[in-house]
Parts: sequence; structure tokens; C-alpha cells
Amino acid sequence: MRIKKLVSQRFKERPADCVIDSHALMIRGGYMKYVGNGIFSEYPVLRRITAKIENIIREEMNAIDGQEVLFPVVMPAELWQESGRYDSIGSELVRFQDRNKSKMVLGMTHEEAAVQLVREYGQSYQQYPFMIYQIQRKFRDEARPRAGMIRVREFTMKDAYSFHTSQEDLEEYYKKCYDAYNRIFERVGIPEVVTVASDSGMMGGSMSHEYMLLNEVGEDSIVLCTECDYRANMEAAENIVENTAADSLKPLECIETPDCKTIEAVCEYLKSDILSSCKAVVYQKNSDDAFVVAFVRGDYEVNETKLRNLVGEELHTAEITEESPLVAGYIGPYNISDKVSYYCDLSLKGIDSIVAGANKEGFHYVNLNLEREIGNVKYVDIAKVKEGGICPCCGRPSLTIKRGIEVGNIFQLGEKYTKSMGMQYADKDGSMHYPIMGCYGIGVGRLAASICEARHDEYGPIWPIAIAPWEVHICCLRPDDEETRHAADALYEKLSAERIEVIYDDRDGIRPGEMFADADLLGVPVRAIISPRNLRENMIEISTRDKSVKALVESEKCVEYIIELIAKLKGNSER
Amino acid sequence: MRIKKLVSQRFKERPADCVIDSHALMIRGGYMKYVGNGIFSEYPVLRRITAKIENIIREEMNAIDGQEVLFPVVMPAELWQESGRYDSIGSELVRFQDRNKSKMVLGMTHEEAAVQLVREYGQSYQQYPFMIYQIQRKFRDEARPRAGMIRVREFTMKDAYSFHTSQEDLEEYYKKCYDAYNRIFERVGIPEVVTVASDSGMMGGSMSHEYMLLNEVGEDSIVLCTECDYRANMEAAENIVENTAADSLKPLECIETPDCKTIEAVCEYLKSDILSSCKAVVYQKNSDDAFVVAFVRGDYEVNETKLRNLVGEELHTAEITEESPLVAGYIGPYNISDKVSYYCDLSLKGIDSIVAGANKEGFHYVNLNLEREIGNVKYVDIAKVKEGGICPCCGRPSLTIKRGIEVGNIFQLGEKYTKSMGMQYADKDGSMHYPIMGCYGIGVGRLAASICEARHDEYGPIWPIAIAPWEVHICCLRPDDEETRHAADALYEKLSAERIEVIYDDRDGIRPGEMFADADLLGVPVRAIISPRNLRENMIEISTRDKSVKALVESEKCVEYIIELIAKLKGNSER
Repeated sequence: MRIKKLVSQRFKERPADCVIDSHALMIRGGYMKYVGNGIFSEYPVLRRITAKIENIIREEMNAIDGQEVLFPVVMPAELWQESGRYDSIGSELVRFQDRNKSKMVLGMTHEEAAVQLVREYGQSYQQYPFMIYQIQRKFRDEARPRAGMIRVREFTMKDAYSFHTSQEDLEEYYKKCYDAYNRIFERVGIPEVVTVASDSGMMGGSMSHEYMLLNEVGEDSIVLCTECDYRANMEAAENIVENTAADSLKPLECIETPDCKTIEAVCEYLKSDILSSCKAVVYQKNSDDAFVVAFVRGDYEVNETKLRNLVGEELHTAEITEESPLVAGYIGPYNISDKVSYYCDLSLKGIDSIVAGANKEGFHYVNLNLEREIGNVKYVDIAKVKEGGICPCCGRPSLTIKRGIEVGNIFQLGEKYTKSMGMQYADKDGSMHYPIMGCYGIGVGRLAASICEARHDEYGPIWPIAIAPWEVHICCLRPDDEETRHAADALYEKLSAERIEVIYDDRDGIRPGEMFADADLLGVPVRAIISPRNLRENMIEISTRDKSVKALVESEKCVEYIIELIAKLKGNSER
Repeated sequence: MRIKKLVSQRFKERPADCVIDSHALMIRGGYMKYVGNGIFSEYPVLRRITAKIENIIREEMNAIDGQEVLFPVVMPAELWQESGRYDSIGSELVRFQDRNKSKMVLGMTHEEAAVQLVREYGQSYQQYPFMIYQIQRKFRDEARPRAGMIRVREFTMKDAYSFHTSQEDLEEYYKKCYDAYNRIFERVGIPEVVTVASDSGMMGGSMSHEYMLLNEVGEDSIVLCTECDYRANMEAAENIVENTAADSLKPLECIETPDCKTIEAVCEYLKSDILSSCKAVVYQKNSDDAFVVAFVRGDYEVNETKLRNLVGEELHTAEITEESPLVAGYIGPYNISDKVSYYCDLSLKGIDSIVAGANKEGFHYVNLNLEREIGNVKYVDIAKVKEGGICPCCGRPSLTIKRGIEVGNIFQLGEKYTKSMGMQYADKDGSMHYPIMGCYGIGVGRLAASICEARHDEYGPIWPIAIAPWEVHICCLRPDDEETRHAADALYEKLSAERIEVIYDDRDGIRPGEMFADADLLGVPVRAIISPRNLRENMIEISTRDKSVKALVESEKCVEYIIELIAKLKGNSER
């Protein structure tokens, strides 16, 4: 295709509202257009990329016996009421009424639709296992869409659902899908994607993994061990803390600590160690605003995901007023009002003398010993892992924390949906059971943006050849020169005849610099530059977008050279 | 793929709620599943068909220089307010508020999104013409979804938008797309689809065509001339009526016509000819309930589409009460209240002596002469064409009326959207103009169902090979017999190795009758039946679903025979 016919424009200036590079480059390169908050249209360049990604995903899903289906975007609320998610999911789920005042939802994921589709099919054990998937638009009313295609409200997603008659069978298939996902990320050109153990969140179920592209712009915190293979999302990472016992126990004292409302201020005032202090973080339940206090060692932060899972419902940051049964700044586990529920983190276990709020304006306890004062304390894991923390796998203090973009996830769902939606199968002996489900997602647009984030320079994306919008970009530097145009036209035709995907820049009156800037923004792997100067030597310049190749090739050998180069690049991307 | 692994079940009984065959067969065959009113999921069998249809459409759109893009399903209301359609479209357009109370709509068509995408790109005449298209889900909140996939609320649609700098250029491209559509319908196996002139409806614009599959179950009435090529949708068909003048005019009389509230009753009572009677049909404007009366000759029906276009806004059937300025059953054009607007159809032109309501309870006029009594009457075309009506093209009384399913449409939109949304381009001389648009739609699911409607027998669909879910269906009649299974397995493997798409039925304990019934429901073009009896003669039975071929072929020649048969079937479908 000729670039002058390509619908979309490219420009130089970085848009002010673009925080991350992939967003800026994909706007500057004419890949996507803002339609509304978290909503974009795809120009042809991006559509070519997403179509290739979709096909790679499709091939890998088919290779593990996936069968493609299609669920609707709009679903009746009844379906989501069956599973209970119509009520349990917050405002990310769009709810509306149709012309007959029937309640409807927009699909943000399709577990319910999947169960509804196969509820009758899966009535006998003989049908199992099976997996169905779709590649379909979804809408999730995110509170804070950001970073271009990384976090949007509407997106194309591949979502797969597998059904099994035993946990073992699920785990076997889960492993297959785990490997298929690795192949997908390898094939689209980001083999460095890692898996991390993750929190199952609103999906329900037990074990789950996220595929993370480690990258500064990522929204997720990933905990990695530098000594072993342990990797987990911060939300799910186990926190191990070792406290050393004191030489002797001292009696509890209640001491006036005026104007010490933060743990740092208290420790400063009392000249005590923050490692023997107790910090309170207060939340309220979304359902009834009941107070929930999380106590962690002064140097730790609360892991809200873990806390939420423990409490079993949604929480929000507390608002403490005069009427509250809590004294802001002076909250501690001992003598706390019985109107609030509280949790003590494992990081407090084994500290014999703690400094903690006395639940009385202006006072803290010192030498608080939880076992002695409260007794029978049930410690729970609700703190965030810290840099240098102890690895739950190898036991060494070698944890490090990195940022990552989640490019895929796989969940073991268990019976959550089959049970709530009454899907059962008859086993060999006629007994009835709920099938066990797995689900597996990849966001197509986010993956495209993530690849761009991982593969770009200051001038534009460097697309891996398997998903690049074209394979070759021909720049004809002087289309007004007859010989040059003729050579460029000929190369364009020959490459096209070889079924190579070519974008051809034969625009008149464009400076070479502008042509190259446009080529950089389109990020096509192989570039052929045809100029009068090189042509005089019967040469054409061939280079790669990643700058690994730059060669002058005889005109006659050019097609052959390019074919080999493409084969090599494709080989690389499949390694 | 093995049929025992295919997700979906087939059954014998016609579901009670299926009015048309394609719906019944596609439910019975496990193609689709009801999710909600006008909302379906696609099982793998149908998804294979729709994917093939999508690819054929994609190829043909690319062949006429279409560039694939993707617009969002969910759009901000502002976009639709720009074009004015946020207010002008009724409840088919789903409107809802997001979590921030921003008004949103669900895309039922994407003219606005198309203009928004290319508004900046198309600023210079040099960019024109261009065409962009997408294949995307849409939601239209139909009042009466029906007939399975024929009229649904959510559907996959290919919608294309072209942009031009002159009407001539649009017409040239329109012709290209017209031809591409014919190729698409030919390739998917229903070359008999015809084009008809159509009403542009809510899309705006002037010229438009619909692609109609003539079929009893169709919702549309198509007017065709048996003597020439004239074809039009009833909604758009021009009605020509010739009335003969009376010998002499008689004086107007107002006659009592007790209990004559229908035109038939009046004619019966007065012993007058219905061809010289005037029928009143009363509507009200949706906006302000103002009365609109349509007068047609007694033997005609009102064409509401034409009337609506004439009035310029939506109408509904009137409710006449005591307070209304109309006397139900006695409404006529003479002495009608000036509080109502009325239109006289062309079928009333040239009748010298009319029987019409006197706008007075229990009275009709006879010998009413519109020119004499009212004068200067502006006749308009608001009646439905009748069987045997006069062809507006060849002038012969040879019109006939058939039913049709609309499987595609193309519109010349003009400047409606570019003007309302402020899209302009600079011409060579620097002058600014609004681009002229065309738009072109095909519903993928409806097309699949229409093909089924046109190609089926009582046992199931007879899919054209280009879109069939598989090319070959192998029935192994006795998989428990080692030799038979071996032969069937071998054929399955050989055909698969030739990249032929095979569905393989090797289920144990299934009677041949049931196997064949399932094969009939899957409608795969070529069938290979492997039975111990034929195998003893070293033969395999090969047949086609349409019963045109049934042969016993030597085992060794079977693969070759099938390859040739498929080639022949593909040739047929491309003819």
C-alpha cells in the first residue's frame, strides 16, 4: 500500500496528555484516536497489528483444542444475577435498561455467558474437558483510564473458559494454557514476559497467574526473588517477617504523647525503634461503613488486597469523626472499642515490647506485649512485602520489587460459577457434580501497546516482524527522478508479488528527513531506501528498524536479500 | 475435528418458538443459543461460518481499497449530538450514563465515529477518495426482534464509509462497492440476491440500494417489474395511478350515510365504485401529537415511509377522541378542520366525482371534485404500490410484489454527516468544502441465517462450500469394527494432511440414522460414509449434502476424488 493512501496522519509533537511513550508514539504515528475517556478508535495501522495479534492468539488457542465461540456484548441482568455478580461488582459493570425497561449489562468478562452456553452440553462426564474462547469487545467502566491503550474502558479481549471434571484435569489443562500463553508472548515478540502468582480478585477461585511485562510504566508491583524463581504480584505476595525477642519484659505503661499523630512522630518523641512500633490503618466496609483497623509494624504498609480478601468484602479509607469509636492518631490494639473489628499483621508477632496508640487522645502505650495484654492473638498476613524482604520460596532476604504491565492472566476458578449457575454433569456412576472451570484472558490492544512500550526508541515503535503492520517500508527519496521512481516501483511490485507486505512511500516533495521520521513512527522492521545517489552505483540501502542491519545491496539482489532478512527476523522472533 | 469434541448439541424436535426454518435448524443444529430477547451466543459451528463470511467480506472490501479500522461499541453522547442523531433517533439507540454520569450510547451504526476518525486526515483534497470499514458488534434496541438471526438486537456488522470530493466520484465508488457486494453474495453462495432501490431512512442522503434475498420469510416487500429490470423496496417504490375523467361533472352533495364508518361500507351503501372513493388514514406526529391525515383512493394503502419522509418526522397511528378536530369514520379533504395537516395521494388525481367523508358525524360528500371544491391541490406519492401496478420504468402494468430479506445495503449519504460534524477539506484553490459520503453495510449473522433460509431442506442447512463450517463430514458407521475405524481414521488423517477441513464422526454406539441426522444438521457439503459392508468391496460412499452427487469410490482413490469434488464445488460457487 502507498503511504499517501494510508488513512491517518503522523506528527512530530508529543501530545501533552500522553504520560507514557507507547501512548505518545501511537498517537503521533496515527495508530489510534481518542473518542472519549478510555475509548479509542483504531486507525488502519493499528488494526493491522491487532489483527495479527488476534490471529496468533487464535492459532495458539486452537492448538490447545480451544473452540472459538462468540458471546454477546450486551447481556440480560438475569444472567449476572444468577452468579451473584450483578450485585457484587461495583460501578465497573455498566448497567442500563432497554426500551422495555429490562435490566441489561455490558460484558466486562464472560464467565456467566460461557456457563450459560454450555450448561446443557456439559451434562455428561464424557464431554469433558473442553475449552471455548472468543475474541470480542468488552467494556469495563474503569474509574481511571490511563496510559493510552494500557488501561482503557473498551477493549478487545481474548477470553477462554475451560471445563473439567477434576482439579487434576484442570491443573493439567491450566499448564497447557500456561505454556500456550508463553508461546503467544514469544511469537508476538516479547519473550521476556514473566508469570507471577496473583490474587484472584473478583473472578473468584484459587490459583492464578498473571503474565507481566516488567516495565517502569506498569501499574502493578511485582515481587521477585533475586536468588530463586519466586515471583508474585504484590497483591498476592506472602510477607515474611522475623522479630527477635526482647531480653526481658517490662510492665505496660500509658504515656502522654502530645501532638504525636503519626508513628514516626511517636517514635521520635519516645526515642523508640520503629521496628517495635504498631501502626494503625483504618478502613470502613462499603456495605455498612463498619470500621476495620489493620495493625502493622510501623515500617510496613497495609496490603489492601489481602485485607479485603480476609474481610471478605469491599473496603474504603475510613473517615473518622467525633462520633466514631476511634481516636484518630491514637489507635492501638489494646483496649480498642469492641465496635470495631481489627486485624494484627504477622509483622507484629514476636515483638515483646510494642509502642501503640492507647485509644485515648494524646496517649500511647509503651512496653505493650500483645500476648500478655490481649492474649491469643491471631496474626494474619496483611502487609506489603518490602525491598530486601524474605523470600517465601528460598527463605533468603532477597526480594526485590519491580513494576510490570499485566499482559495476560489465567485463573483456576473452581466451582464458583458452575455452582451458582446450577451447571452439573452426571459422572460414570450417575452421581451429579459441578464442573471445575479455568479462565484465561489476554487484552489485544493492551498487548499491542505493551509491545510498543518494550520495543521503541525516541523516534517510534520497533515492531517485531510477526505483528508489524507491514514487513517492508520502501522510501523513494526522489520520486520526481524517473530512474529512482522506476527502481522503487519495480521493488514495490516485486516484493508484493512475493506476498511480502509493503508500505511504499513515493510522496512527491517530502524531504528525506520527514520520510524517515514517518517510517520510524510506523516502525516497520525492514526498510529499503532508494536514492539517485546509491542508484548510480546500482545500490539500494536496506536496513532494519532496530538498527541491527544496514547494508548497501545491489539492485538485482535486493528482493532476495530482503526475503532472507525477513526469514531471519521471523526466525529470531520464534526463537 | 471429532464431532464428539464439538461443543454444542443437536436435537430432533423443532423448537416451538421458531417461526422460520433457518432459526429452527440453527437452534436444532447447535449453531446458536438464546441469551436474551434478540441476543444470541454463537457456538463453534456458527462461529466457523461467520468467520468465513467475515473473511470473504474483508477480501472484497480490501479489493476496492477499503482500509480496515475499528470503532468503539460505546461512544460518548456528544458524538451523536454533533450529528443531531442523539435526539432524532428513537429508542433503538441505547443511551446510558457511565459511572461519572456522562451520557453514552451503544453504536448501532458508525457514521459519527467514521467522521470523527478522519476529520483531521481529510483536510486536503489530495487525500480523497478513501474508504474505511470495520467488522464490529453493534446493538440496536429493536422493538420486535424475530426470526432468529434475521432480526436481532446485537449483531456483527461490516460497515464501510467512503469519502469523496464530488458526487461523480461518490457515484463511481458507489458502483465499485455495488459490484463488490454482488461478488460477496456470489462467493458466499447466494448469487440470486437482487438489488432494489430503497428508502434512505434515518441514514439521510439520497440514492440507496438494498440487496435482497427474495424469500417468503422476508420482512420486506419488494416491488418488481416482470417486464423490465425495475426493482424497488415497497417503502421506496413509486406508485403510478391513472384515473379516467368522468363524462360530466355533477354538483356536490352532502348525503347521510348512517353507520358507514369504513370506505367499503360507504361504497356498499351508496352503490358507488371504490375507485372513486377517498379513504382517510390518520396519524399523529411523535413530537407534538398534531394530526396528519393521508387521503388515498379507497383501494390503496398508505405507504407510511413515504408519508414520514414527506412530513419530515416520526408519526404514530392516531387516537381520535371527542376533543379531536376530526370525526372518526367521516373524515374527508373538503371542509376539514384547519387544525390538521393533510396530504392527498396521486391516486386521487383526476377523479372527477369522489365519495369522501364530510367531516360531520354520519355524512359523506358525493360528487366531490377536489379541483373545483378545494382548488390547487398538491398531489403527493404516499400510497403503496399494488400487484399489477404500473411500472415507473417501462410503463407497463406489470408490477409484482414479493417478500425479501435485506442482506446488505449501500447509501449515498451526501454531506449530512460531514456538514453537521464540521468536516471540511481545502480544494486545490484553497476553497473549503464538505466531503460527500457513502456508507455500505452487511450484517454477518443475518447473512448466515439468510443463506440457511435459501439453502436447506427439511433435515438441515445445505451450506455452500465457501462458508460451510467444514468441507468434509466423515461418518464412520461402525467405529467398533477395527477395519472400519482404521479406514476412517486413515481418511481423516489424509484429508487433514491435505489441509481439508474435516469433521469426523467416530462416535461409538450411535445408530447410522442418528449420525446422518447430525450430519444433515451440520450441512457440510461433502460426506464420506465408511461402513463394513462397502469396505468389503473396498469402497467408500461419497455424497454431497445437496444430493447432486452420490458415488461409491475405491478406498485408494477416495482422497483424490474428494479433492476434485471440493474443487468442483468451489468452482460452482464462484461461477
